[in-house]
Amino acid sequence: MPYFDAASSAPLHPVARQALLAALDEGWADPARLYREGRRARLLLDAAREAAAEAVGCRPDELVFTPSGTRAVHEGISGALAGRRRAGRRLIVSAVEHSSVLHTAGAHEADGGTVTEVPVDRTGRIAPGAYAAALREAPDGVALACLQSANHEVGTLQPVAEAVEECAAAGVPLLVDAAQSLGWGPTEGNWSLLTASAHKWGGPAGVGLLAVRKGVRFRTVQPADERESGRSPGFENLPAIVAAAASLRAVRAEAAAEAERLRGLVDRIRARVPELVPEVEVVGDPERRLPHLVTFSCLYVDGEALLHELDRAEFSVSSGSSCTSSTLTPSHVLRAMGVLSEGNVRVSLPRGTAEAEVDRFLEVLPGVVADVREHLGAPKPAEAAPGPDPDPEPELVVDSLGKRCPIPVIELAKVIGEVPVGGLVTVLSDDEAARLDIPAWCEMRGQTYEGERPADRGVAYRVRRRA
Amino acid sequence: MPYFDAASSAPLHPVARQALLAALDEGWADPARLYREGRRARLLLDAAREAAAEAVGCRPDELVFTPSGTRAVHEGISGALAGRRRAGRRLIVSAVEHSSVLHTAGAHEADGGTVTEVPVDRTGRIAPGAYAAALREAPDGVALACLQSANHEVGTLQPVAEAVEECAAAGVPLLVDAAQSLGWGPTEGNWSLLTASAHKWGGPAGVGLLAVRKGVRFRTVQPADERESGRSPGFENLPAIVAAAASLRAVRAEAAAEAERLRGLVDRIRARVPELVPEVEVVGDPERRLPHLVTFSCLYVDGEALLHELDRAEFSVSSGSSCTSSTLTPSHVLRAMGVLSEGNVRVSLPRGTAEAEVDRFLEVLPGVVADVREHLGAPKPAEAAPGPDPDPEPELVVDSLGKRCPIPVIELAKVIGEVPVGGLVTVLSDDEAARLDIPAWCEMRGQTYEGERPADRGVAYRVRRRA
Repeated sequence: MPYFDAASSAPLHPVARQALLAALDEGWADPARLYREGRRARLLLDAAREAAAEAVGCRPDELVFTPSGTRAVHEGISGALAGRRRAGRRLIVSAVEHSSVLHTAGAHEADGGTVTEVPVDRTGRIAPGAYAAALREAPDGVALACLQSANHEVGTLQPVAEAVEECAAAGVPLLVDAAQSLGWGPTEGNWSLLTASAHKWGGPAGVGLLAVRKGVRFRTVQPADERESGRSPGFENLPAIVAAAASLRAVRAEAAAEAERLRGLVDRIRARVPELVPEVEVVGDPERRLPHLVTFSCLYVDGEALLHELDRAEFSVSSGSSCTSSTLTPSHVLRAMGVLSEGNVRVSLPRGTAEAEVDRFLEVLPGVVADVREHLGAPKPAEAAPGPDPDPEPELVVDSLGKRCPIPVIELAKVIGEVPVGGLVTVLSDDEAARLDIPAWCEMRGQTYEGERPADRGVAYRVRRRA
Repeated sequence: MPYFDAASSAPLHPVARQALLAALDEGWADPARLYREGRRARLLLDAAREAAAEAVGCRPDELVFTPSGTRAVHEGISGALAGRRRAGRRLIVSAVEHSSVLHTAGAHEADGGTVTEVPVDRTGRIAPGAYAAALREAPDGVALACLQSANHEVGTLQPVAEAVEECAAAGVPLLVDAAQSLGWGPTEGNWSLLTASAHKWGGPAGVGLLAVRKGVRFRTVQPADERESGRSPGFENLPAIVAAAASLRAVRAEAAAEAERLRGLVDRIRARVPELVPEVEVVGDPERRLPHLVTFSCLYVDGEALLHELDRAEFSVSSGSSCTSSTLTPSHVLRAMGVLSEGNVRVSLPRGTAEAEVDRFLEVLPGVVADVREHLGAPKPAEAAPGPDPDPEPELVVDSLGKRCPIPVIELAKVIGEVPVGGLVTVLSDDEAARLDIPAWCEMRGQTYEGERPADRGVAYRVRRRA
């Protein structure tokens, strides 16, 4: 049963399981105590910290263990902002950071701070010089900048080394969220803070990493606590910490070979999906990307139905489509990239994924997409292609109010052939995803998107037929 | 090798180990995902929440899992304070709460809030009516009151049901820190919030509980997060959560019988230690107490040396003596109780402790204490008892500057016989523990403590010989 959602949570690495079991027996006592059980726990904790620090590329006393990657992000950002409060209250982030970073930025704004969001291109990558520009244009003092090493939804690698230099030139610390990449290799460049999450590399849940380089101003905003240099309060989750460090070392030892192998499989998906499935957009940078992750969006497809059908076919994947989120808004990453969000599928292969599983996925996918499209009454490729104009109206309004993604786009596709070339179709929609998906459909289908206008209810999206 | 420090961290219960192993295989995926691995994880999480809620005595949707008891306390207090900000900014705590509570109170004060510390008697128990009085006398609006169910250092049970009523009468929510007692039974009374920690009852590290009753005003101060009703951000530590819930159910099933058995063993320690070891004070309430915990202090003994010698004799215990803390100050609990802190030993028996281990402890202890006393040059019981006055000086000054606990008390005991009855001994000391231990020594030895005065260096502690 192929599990293709390693970017959410990787299956536990055998080394993690083994280390966790050993540490359950040896590492349950309080490492702050002086008796033998405590000393044994302390030795395990120290050894885990050294191993993890080596993999991260920092000193052991620069690294603390947190209860999750999310908490590492919260505590890293809030501590750096508090430590540099005199320098200013502006935080710079990219528009495609993990929600834990953006939510911390939101909390900072609610607390009176200011935030600059650096845009990305259609591949999800920030432009070279983008952080330098954000720093230059900041109207107030910048306390901290954050940048992910690689995007969690589309796999695009960010130019971290350049951003480090741009921030260093401005004297601003850079926090790198390395959650998606740390298992594959260290983050290059002299970053100031780094965060990561063990269950993303095959370690256990319950462990995040927060590295703060010596010399970086940092002031914990948590209540005082003696554990983890005061930077991560609470009794250490030692067995899981030991397992996290051991598995990080193990996945790193296998990383080069496994990355090459998975890159080949992902290349196959990237090449074959658009051949096998009509009306698909593969998103993310095709070269500068994580080895194991690929994302594509299928026109006229409901993401939730697609996931459900793939699950019935025994493939576990995730999606950035609005209908799969609790808020019914499309992924902020896809939105920032300006790409289609409907029928979105993220495939992230865990280590050890067999070639046959990928081949079977490629066999199953076209039928699944076709079934979902048929069920939704999506236009067939032949239908969707504009036919001869049948007594054309110069303008046409489609009322999609109350209908959810992908229905508004399906209805648009069905009527575009009914206006003459040069004619206008206006889609009325109150679905958030339409704002992203109607322009994306135009770009994919060679139609002209003429922008949106307010309407009595919802929004009027205007599309001019070009061919 | 007897481990007698269950109150720091209990050895992992076999049921916890078993459940953890099963959940490592079944519960590593993201419970928010819709595919089968995610649904399986969600089922495990829901079942764990139901089991834990039943043991706590609340509804499943009132309970969230946090990464530790400390984090449950931090998030419970800060959320309740924020939720009731309009009611006021005063927080009421007892003087003997766990450091996680007192440190959160400290952070609240640093943030402009106010704190009332309710004192305790010599057994460590708050007086009946103490919370009502604190509420009545609060000069400003009270947002929240906190009270532990049982003290972690001396085992004294607090009158939680009374405090609940006193707070309810004032319309103020009460947060109960049930970390030490939840494995023994539910907390009675209609508390508003409750916190606990799994590794204290034999569950794994990495899991705390936070219950917030419906209707209690609560506003999370963490950045937004979809996990755990937004009250505990970050990926759920599911295998540990499953193990925590399973072991809580298991220890509860054994609780009544095991409590009775351990109570007998603790009774034996309480009775025998003062018979076997001279100059000992057993502290804490002798009746209203946790079943498995007993604490005593030995005059003229260095706590660190005592722990070290007990460790060599293969007994793992902890201590609230100043010399065993990183800050060189005695435990705030012993200080609030006004009892001797030097040579302090806390024995907390894990479930399953054999009678023979306790007997062996009672065999070993007297020799260990005697050795430490001899090494420190402590007065022998005969010496220490005031002999005939040898050409007495009416007043005598002992310079103990620069000397650490228990030396100032040892030097006081050695010279008290050199002044006549009615004569005065002044001890100069710059050790924080002296402030607690010199009055405590006077109370134990029937001498009169006449208070302290500032001195050029350190503090002058004045003791009048009474017998």
